[in-house]
Amino acid sequence: MAWELLSMIGTVAFAISGAFIAMEEKFDVFGVFILGVVTAFGGGAVRNLLIGVPVSALWEQEVLFQVALLAITVVFLFPNNLLRHWTRWGNLFDAVGLAAFAIQGAIYAVELDMPLPAVVLAAVLTGSGGGMIRDVLAGRKPLVLRAEVYAAWAVLAGLAIGLEIVRTDAGLMILFVLITALRILSALYKWRLPFRQV
Amino acid sequence: MAWELLSMIGTVAFAISGAFIAMEEKFDVFGVFILGVVTAFGGGAVRNLLIGVPVSALWEQEVLFQVALLAITVVFLFPNNLLRHWTRWGNLFDAVGLAAFAIQGAIYAVELDMPLPAVVLAAVLTGSGGGMIRDVLAGRKPLVLRAEVYAAWAVLAGLAIGLEIVRTDAGLMILFVLITALRILSALYKWRLPFRQV
Amino acid sequence: MAWELLSMIGTVAFAISGAFIAMEEKFDVFGVFILGVVTAFGGGAVRNLLIGVPVSALWEQEVLFQVALLAITVVFLFPNNLLRHWTRWGNLFDAVGLAAFAIQGAIYAVELDMPLPAVVLAAVLTGSGGGMIRDVLAGRKPLVLRAEVYAAWAVLAGLAIGLEIVRTDAGLMILFVLITALRILSALYKWRLPFRQV
Repeated sequence: MAWELLSMIGTVAFAISGAFIAMEEKFDVFGVFILGVVTAFGGGAVRNLLIGVPVSALWEQEVLFQVALLAITVVFLFPNNLLRHWTRWGNLFDAVGLAAFAIQGAIYAVELDMPLPAVVLAAVLTGSGGGMIRDVLAGRKPLVLRAEVYAAWAVLAGLAIGLEIVRTDAGLMILFVLITALRILSALYKWRLPFRQV
Repeated sequence: MAWELLSMIGTVAFAISGAFIAMEEKFDVFGVFILGVVTAFGGGAVRNLLIGVPVSALWEQEVLFQVALLAITVVFLFPNNLLRHWTRWGNLFDAVGLAAFAIQGAIYAVELDMPLPAVVLAAVLTGSGGGMIRDVLAGRKPLVLRAEVYAAWAVLAGLAIGLEIVRTDAGLMILFVLITALRILSALYKWRLPFRQV
Repeated sequence: MAWELLSMIGTVAFAISGAFIAMEEKFDVFGVFILGVVTAFGGGAVRNLLIGVPVSALWEQEVLFQVALLAITVVFLFPNNLLRHWTRWGNLFDAVGLAAFAIQGAIYAVELDMPLPAVVLAAVLTGSGGGMIRDVLAGRKPLVLRAEVYAAWAVLAGLAIGLEIVRTDAGLMILFVLITALRILSALYKWRLPFRQV
């Protein structure tokens, strides 16, 4: 149950985040739909590649498609004055997608009995794949690589699941909300982690 | 028959469009060959990933390889004064590749009995994959996401095939020529679709 | 034996080259780890996709993961004054990764009895895949497409293996050192190949 719900949430969230960024970049109506779909299903495709499910299995998810297309349509038609108050919406939906797919990646890795470092990596790569594709296509530097805290929250999801701190569906949902909230707070208050230069 | 012909046409067209863009970016001779090959087989790889054929199946297509390499060689050696009159050639070949692979994607989706929206998406993603890889590698914003009408023609291909308006090999060839022509016209006359901004 | 050793060398080298470029771009500590891991396993993923091994097979290589993470940690903690004398280190490790994966790609193609042009292409695409992903994510134009000689050395590896000039494990190691050295020299002395413009 949690697995399908997370797929739905992650796909729709990435679809919306892609549509927002496409509008920011002034793409036409088809560009908005394509970046939305590519972000949503690119995220799913990266997840499938990494967890060994055929990428073409995406096509079987008719409902997911229709919901993603509907979500993009709603975003495209949304009243401008509402959108203007919410310029961080792209970030919000990216955070939701990150959390949903990071948890899926970690669950999958635990089911394969992989060691903790691999669980953490699965969470990070699965969670950030869709956003990476979106940002590269929009000509931006991927969010996950930029300065504000991003991947750390996927690492947290990986640890919580890899160390079996979270095991129930209810626990996964709480973790999902927590990861999303932490990512949004770190973008909002521009939290930073240490960095260094060559 | 139509399937193999479309593979051949799409692969060669993307190879040539990659080689043109590499020359515009002043890549050396190896860069021209690599961008040509990556565009051609990247398009094929995206198509294979999306339709569930192993990517490594590309290697079996010896003839396709040889034709693509030959086409890139011809482009590289072409007299400069002829090239100069035809700066839109990159766009022309990209249009041909778009049409060929969009039709293949739609045919595949119909064979799987997928619903109309999925057929249209398959056409768009399969048709634009090679060009996306090419443009990202050349440091450009993908053509499919830019302002002139592009994806709409792949949508048209998807509708024509998904609604079974076109069913014969001859019909597919007419559709192919039509899609190519529409894409070239829209680039030439800078047709625009509605867009909006956040 | 040579196969596993080349996997190890290539993965670690790409991990380090990704970490260096991330530090040059001032990514935070997680960004450094992510670009390192994505470069290393992106290279492996491209290789697996091209040679028909499931991408998810990467997860089975626990040792490889741990070594890559360790290498990135060492790079991140390295004393600054040492790093400063070695700004070409990123290039050095990229050269090592190129050589290791190019040789693997060529060996694989020969085992499939592919014709010489396909062997050469397999060497080039397999060798340059990880670096392409790294450079695109860091917002740079891929090294393989830029002006200094790069792909030519992968072509050389493909020819040496495809023409069966090199057949023993010892021969492969000598070839590996040779390719690495040629790439470093061409970056150091800015060798150029012919190019032309449209």
